[in-house]
Amino acid sequence: MEFFEILYVVDGPVAMITLNRPEKLNAYTARMGAELAQAVNQASRDDAVRAVILTGAGRGFCAGADISAGADSFDTTAGGAGGKNFGAGGDRAPGGGFVQALFECEKPIIAAFNGPAVGVGVTLALPTDIKIASSSARFGFIFARRGLVPEAGSAWFLPQLVGLSQALRWCLTGRIFDAQEALAGGLVSEVVEPEALLPRAKAIALEIAENCAPVSLALTRQMLWRFGPATSPAELLKLDGGFAMTLGQGGDVREGVSAFLEKRPPQFPGRVSTDMPSAYPWW
Amino acid sequence: MEFFEILYVVDGPVAMITLNRPEKLNAYTARMGAELAQAVNQASRDDAVRAVILTGAGRGFCAGADISAGADSFDTTAGGAGGKNFGAGGDRAPGGGFVQALFECEKPIIAAFNGPAVGVGVTLALPTDIKIASSSARFGFIFARRGLVPEAGSAWFLPQLVGLSQALRWCLTGRIFDAQEALAGGLVSEVVEPEALLPRAKAIALEIAENCAPVSLALTRQMLWRFGPATSPAELLKLDGGFAMTLGQGGDVREGVSAFLEKRPPQFPGRVSTDMPSAYPWW
Amino acid sequence: MEFFEILYVVDGPVAMITLNRPEKLNAYTARMGAELAQAVNQASRDDAVRAVILTGAGRGFCAGADISAGADSFDTTAGGAGGKNFGAGGDRAPGGGFVQALFECEKPIIAAFNGPAVGVGVTLALPTDIKIASSSARFGFIFARRGLVPEAGSAWFLPQLVGLSQALRWCLTGRIFDAQEALAGGLVSEVVEPEALLPRAKAIALEIAENCAPVSLALTRQMLWRFGPATSPAELLKLDGGFAMTLGQGGDVREGVSAFLEKRPPQFPGRVSTDMPSAYPWW
Repeated sequence: MEFFEILYVVDGPVAMITLNRPEKLNAYTARMGAELAQAVNQASRDDAVRAVILTGAGRGFCAGADISAGADSFDTTAGGAGGKNFGAGGDRAPGGGFVQALFECEKPIIAAFNGPAVGVGVTLALPTDIKIASSSARFGFIFARRGLVPEAGSAWFLPQLVGLSQALRWCLTGRIFDAQEALAGGLVSEVVEPEALLPRAKAIALEIAENCAPVSLALTRQMLWRFGPATSPAELLKLDGGFAMTLGQGGDVREGVSAFLEKRPPQFPGRVSTDMPSAYPWW
Repeated sequence: MEFFEILYVVDGPVAMITLNRPEKLNAYTARMGAELAQAVNQASRDDAVRAVILTGAGRGFCAGADISAGADSFDTTAGGAGGKNFGAGGDRAPGGGFVQALFECEKPIIAAFNGPAVGVGVTLALPTDIKIASSSARFGFIFARRGLVPEAGSAWFLPQLVGLSQALRWCLTGRIFDAQEALAGGLVSEVVEPEALLPRAKAIALEIAENCAPVSLALTRQMLWRFGPATSPAELLKLDGGFAMTLGQGGDVREGVSAFLEKRPPQFPGRVSTDMPSAYPWW
Repeated sequence: MEFFEILYVVDGPVAMITLNRPEKLNAYTARMGAELAQAVNQASRDDAVRAVILTGAGRGFCAGADISAGADSFDTTAGGAGGKNFGAGGDRAPGGGFVQALFECEKPIIAAFNGPAVGVGVTLALPTDIKIASSSARFGFIFARRGLVPEAGSAWFLPQLVGLSQALRWCLTGRIFDAQEALAGGLVSEVVEPEALLPRAKAIALEIAENCAPVSLALTRQMLWRFGPATSPAELLKLDGGFAMTLGQGGDVREGVSAFLEKRPPQFPGRVSTDMPSAYPWW
């Protein structure tokens, strides 16, 4: 797949995905959604990639759905340009949507909010693992102000990430809020000056890539996202006990413990493409 | 239903429900619970009401169950006045309890804690969406100190709202705590001076009423409260994708986008009484 | 069972469990896990015990799994000393593991982190109710750095306790962090000077023991830990309504209300060994 509305660059162990319609503050289109899904799947499958960064080109992260078609922008039946640009069909087809791609990605994903992230422009980034923001970022779960409801599974993701109280406040008022409020509310974990944003995102990505076993990261990410209170600790104990036994006999643990005892950086042999335990995926 | 222990006043788009036994710090009775349920249902059905405020008359919000019958106050079989005032029968009858009324309400609800809110006096307000407090408010999940357990579904609501760690601390010690601790622990999102409490609650209610589509608010509220991790993002994606398609063809989105592009306040045509999508309720 | 790797001391209403291999920073072994489970079960059954404190001897809380066997430490098939010391078999046998013992304990448990708590050294303490730390404590969910995954049900416990965002950050980087970060991230609720740690833990334990009914505490603990969003408020309302009716007729409520009205400390008659409501356990 050729990319027109995003950039995909692999630099060492880090894949950088950049939403790339800067003249429109990276306003979301169905094509952008499909390209995002494709890029995430590509990073997930590439053993050379150990961590992913998601950001936006220019002044914005993603200004939300492209509403240049005006009042028809969300009408998937109207046949207007806007109607074709956004809707349930394109980006949510089984197996093809960006939410599923992000959720199932086998690499840790860092969202670096470089500017306004509004509507689908913020919800598209919720299924990432670590979120940081530039002080110039702005956020808004503005759906109720447009006659819509929270999109892209965000009624599931947002309460998991920031708690139900905060999710209710942001979604029921639809207010735009700044990076400091995003930090206080737990949507992002750090706010830095604009020029420090990508260096900081890369530092986090490299800390993960240089210290952590890829197979461990892929399993850990899915364990944390999927073991909500729907399940019982007893169910999880069976699964993590099995992983502990399987991994305990493998080369990654051998290397992890040796490197720790020898005070040197680890060189984990395990690869996501070939070495995931047979119990994965368990869902 | 005539109201004796609460006040119900509609002022513009805002319904104000006031617990009204000020001489007893609004101590809870079975009748108060029934009236509260009735008032909430009335606000939910009235298209003129766009947001609800819940507060208390006088110095208290609600001092907890009326224990003027002494040690028998919680004994529903003893036939004492207290026994009749509080119990599982009255306020928890299927379809009739205030917890269900608040939980299923189709309007956003703001709790304004004007003073002590203890025992059922705080748990009755947990199923509200936005909670603010006067600096004179006090809180206590005091059940274990009275030989009881958390009431009114609060073992479900409280961990959702403030996290399990904080819920455990408050419920296992049964301590009384002040408004600042409630703020730090995430039970309320703002603490203001006593005289600023109702003006602030009204400002939040009006911000919602003037900017957000009623149908969107009703759907959003239920989506956030009901989509815990028991469900998967995939399940929610089916639902919110359907809503996006249905709402995207409707008048509210048309008006929401037009008003945004024309930089004017929206006038949403959709009404909760007649315009909820056919997929609602989905549970 | 005789204890070799822990200490178990009952002092008044408080049972103190101390991980006790100080020369190894209390590094975890399968025997320690089994002794911990046994001690917790003993405290749970002993009516004289009203609260439990879990801490470590010497400078550490628990430095993680004993890896003195080197790279084979986690290999349960290799037959090395390390292999026998840690694995899914010993401490996770049905009915016998420390996670289950802590989770099902009928007494409130306070973890007092006196020093480093890393890997299983922190996850073993997650199913406690109140967590405080000395300023000298250090924490690390370091599994991915050793080629492992989060242990002992921690992929369930940690997101419940600190939220999914924070759990992802700590587990995907595997970083060691200090007591202040643990406080900011919600893992502990207080940080005190080292010499103030045990006095503070005892003060919390005594506040609970002197003010709260044992039966109420046992029920409340299970209600909060088990009623995640997997269940609906309606399900919980049935349960807590039943408890309210049963307890409302019992001696604990009578004493709790009388003591409150007479402004004296309560003397609750109910005992966990004999007076739990017939609806318990409900799972």
